[in-house]
Amino acid sequence: MKIGILGGGQLARMMALRGAELGLEICILSDNKNDPAAQVTQNWSAGSIDDTVAVQRFFSGVDAVTFESEFINTKKLESKLNTTLIKKVQPTPECIGILQDRSTQKALLFENKIPTSPFIVSPDQFQIMDFFKASKSGIVCKKRTNGYDGYGTFIIRNQQELNTFIANNSKTGQFDGREYIAENLVTFSRELAVSAVRDINGHILWTPVVEWKARDSKCWWVKGPVKHKNIDKLKRNLSSLLQKINYIGFISFELFDTKKGLFINEVAPRVHNSAHYSLNALPIDQFQLHLMAIAGLSLKKMGPNNSTLNPISKSFAMVNLVGKEIAETSKLEVKLKRALPLISGAGFLHWYNKDTEKPGRKMGHINVCSSESADKALKKALSLEKEFFNEFKK
Amino acid sequence: MKIGILGGGQLARMMALRGAELGLEICILSDNKNDPAAQVTQNWSAGSIDDTVAVQRFFSGVDAVTFESEFINTKKLESKLNTTLIKKVQPTPECIGILQDRSTQKALLFENKIPTSPFIVSPDQFQIMDFFKASKSGIVCKKRTNGYDGYGTFIIRNQQELNTFIANNSKTGQFDGREYIAENLVTFSRELAVSAVRDINGHILWTPVVEWKARDSKCWWVKGPVKHKNIDKLKRNLSSLLQKINYIGFISFELFDTKKGLFINEVAPRVHNSAHYSLNALPIDQFQLHLMAIAGLSLKKMGPNNSTLNPISKSFAMVNLVGKEIAETSKLEVKLKRALPLISGAGFLHWYNKDTEKPGRKMGHINVCSSESADKALKKALSLEKEFFNEFKK
Repeated sequence: MKIGILGGGQLARMMALRGAELGLEICILSDNKNDPAAQVTQNWSAGSIDDTVAVQRFFSGVDAVTFESEFINTKKLESKLNTTLIKKVQPTPECIGILQDRSTQKALLFENKIPTSPFIVSPDQFQIMDFFKASKSGIVCKKRTNGYDGYGTFIIRNQQELNTFIANNSKTGQFDGREYIAENLVTFSRELAVSAVRDINGHILWTPVVEWKARDSKCWWVKGPVKHKNIDKLKRNLSSLLQKINYIGFISFELFDTKKGLFINEVAPRVHNSAHYSLNALPIDQFQLHLMAIAGLSLKKMGPNNSTLNPISKSFAMVNLVGKEIAETSKLEVKLKRALPLISGAGFLHWYNKDTEKPGRKMGHINVCSSESADKALKKALSLEKEFFNEFKK
Repeated sequence: MKIGILGGGQLARMMALRGAELGLEICILSDNKNDPAAQVTQNWSAGSIDDTVAVQRFFSGVDAVTFESEFINTKKLESKLNTTLIKKVQPTPECIGILQDRSTQKALLFENKIPTSPFIVSPDQFQIMDFFKASKSGIVCKKRTNGYDGYGTFIIRNQQELNTFIANNSKTGQFDGREYIAENLVTFSRELAVSAVRDINGHILWTPVVEWKARDSKCWWVKGPVKHKNIDKLKRNLSSLLQKINYIGFISFELFDTKKGLFINEVAPRVHNSAHYSLNALPIDQFQLHLMAIAGLSLKKMGPNNSTLNPISKSFAMVNLVGKEIAETSKLEVKLKRALPLISGAGFLHWYNKDTEKPGRKMGHINVCSSESADKALKKALSLEKEFFNEFKK
């Protein structure tokens, strides 16, 4: 089976590597031959979805297509493909169309009675000022599309921050909020995440709930499994939602744990950083689950509908290795050569082999499995992160 | 770091896939673009070691070179390379030269007081007849080089089998035993295996001892970890041997468990089928260990010298998926598509994506990790094998 992936970053790379272990042939369409995913397959094609000929050729050569970023221009893609070819894409352009826009995503959650923070869409200046005034602890403005890792997200806690936001988004004195939603800022004790995968028969499997922490608005670490008394109800409602939109593939839900229960922060219709631990801690990883689902394979044998995959070890943790400075390929190699022997065997290193290190760029991650508590697993992961960068930064 | 691998089979494929997770760039030199390893890298070059230009170009483009079969023609390789390039090969051609010939391999074991069955080299007709007569339970004739999975191995238990062997290896009435060694047949209760990896600083790590079973002279299953009271002494002697020949990389030892203790059956100076379980059951797999060692990286942080890597789970098992019939690519795809969902999540499937199924051909394997006994792990692996082939054979 040949599976096409649109995009060549680390998510596509891990899909390619772990998909190959199942005998799936992964084809990559991406801009550069140096892209992380392009390196690990003989089936790389140059191009983006702007390139009609490249897209048509790519789709014709594979059995199914998926993508690594939900911010794909589905309308543009559909305009380049005939009905037969567009049917190869999973999750479908319809699903992605709804979920890639935070306004339709949140509307879908509300419709399905899934708790998420109240919001307004594309506010004008008066609307955003009113919305802020009515809020208790502030608001968050988010780009409706293309936001990730804190990019396109603006937290507004006081009048001054609101004024700055309005000024930064005004042209010739006129505020333009069309690209945004604004939602009430949620006070939470911790951030959680949970993921599901749904196959073409509607069979759903869940991954364990995890706690995660951001640093500089970017996922820093993940630990799990964790428990929450409200999770079962939430999962039931999310299952119905997935059923309703006939979602196929892996999907992740970022959650706020609050005094009023669990709130959905964001939905990511794809493989997700919060489930990278699955490469070593689950009986099958998120990349394989996603590929099997979008390739039309059944997931039924892995457990009853709506059941949760059991971790292999008692607990697990993941820590992202985020770039600290600018380093080109040759320097990066030297740095990795020094740091790699410190991690291997102690934790599982996953290095994305990006050609340049940049501050804030996700360069790799470390997984830890533990027979002790999730906190112990996290402690070990963080100590490995420290050890890694002690050498890496030199 | 760019690592070159000579050969494109499943061992090279698994090195490429797992090496990439550490950020190593794997370059493959093999005959066909369809080769299992050629599929999973953008750095595939067509060619074999017979092709001087291809070999020189390949070696010039990488930092270190290794191979997946020890039966590489080291003299031919050396004749095509200058001193700088030949120094990139690990394990060294000297080590491989000794270990790829069963006669020099066994001589080395005897020199180092490591128990192995008595043998004679390149016998003439009278010598082999005498050797057989003096044996208690029979003899085994083995091709000095290029034998694997039972190919080139002939068990001789009675006069008739001896006559047949002599007749089959005679030209114009004259027996020619130059290609063979003959050794006493060893009576054993079970076959074990253990592997080591040695880095450029001489630091050695061991993998757990496993029991394995052959079917049709080919590895069928592996289970572990197992214990044996004589293993520590044997490992000490094998360590000295590796030290003496300055072996660098992963190396496997097939052992007979006998009433007189442990005997070495064969030495495989490379990654090995008996350690495929390491992909899921060890804190780092044999492919990554081998690549790190031959790339000159230190393994010191993984444990004290001569220590053993602890399995992640209490026990593990591996079962090979061996071809049953002839099936070409398109048919093979359909078969895999049916069988794959039965295994994923229950065991870890590793499929090599060979373009044709052939009876007796290793097509993939299944790993199982268990919190129960090794026997329980094996039982599960064997039931998955059965389930797989029930669908696969249809």
